[in-house]
Amino acid sequence: MTVGAWDPYQRDCPSRLLLDRIGDRWTVLIVGTLDAGPRRFTEIATAVEGISQKMLTQTLRSLERDGFVSRTAYPVVPPHVEYELTELGRSLQQQLRALEGWAIENMDDVVQRQAAYDQRVAS
Amino acid sequence: MTVGAWDPYQRDCPSRLLLDRIGDRWTVLIVGTLDAGPRRFTEIATAVEGISQKMLTQTLRSLERDGFVSRTAYPVVPPHVEYELTELGRSLQQQLRALEGWAIENMDDVVQRQAAYDQRVAS
Repeated sequence: MTVGAWDPYQRDCPSRLLLDRIGDRWTVLIVGTLDAGPRRFTEIATAVEGISQKMLTQTLRSLERDGFVSRTAYPVVPPHVEYELTELGRSLQQQLRALEGWAIENMDDVVQRQAAYDQRVAS
Repeated sequence: MTVGAWDPYQRDCPSRLLLDRIGDRWTVLIVGTLDAGPRRFTEIATAVEGISQKMLTQTLRSLERDGFVSRTAYPVVPPHVEYELTELGRSLQQQLRALEGWAIENMDDVVQRQAAYDQRVAS
């Protein structure tokens, strides 16, 4: 594979791993939460119901490493840390918002098709 | 949760599971392959390098159950089975194509930011 010629259809292309990360459920929901502006860890944990502290920590670190989220620690007592979308993160959010919206919009349709499939398979 | 009011930010909303499925790496690549028209199992396996037979079987079944892919078995010898995007699947593919394109387009940028992050963390 030529460097710079990213192709997720190729077995070892790193773009496949990027696809994994950006398509991840938690990425979609965390980035979606940060769309409204900077948020603290506990605020994100509340918005994304049911995410574990460990998963939120890991996903935020991964988002920061990829350059989608910036982390700002304010030198106050008690410590105050905020997470915010970078410009690249806002660009990603446009894609993910569309995907999330699509899922919500088509969910009724999908549920109907699942029921029809299950009936066909059972009969 | 009100029926029909899908909200993936809620812990038990089924739309969260739909997000998992459509954001999945293999879904993106299989649906992307079918964008060019109907394909046989082995053709998809060749296009999506490194996918296991088991994972391809599972993902195709899940895509069929959700109503994104239709499966047609032609009554010939040897058996001939084709997979094709449904109208709903083509609608999904428009979203996934955008996501895949975004990943490829921004991969250079992400790689640079990862290197900068790793250097900051190491120093």
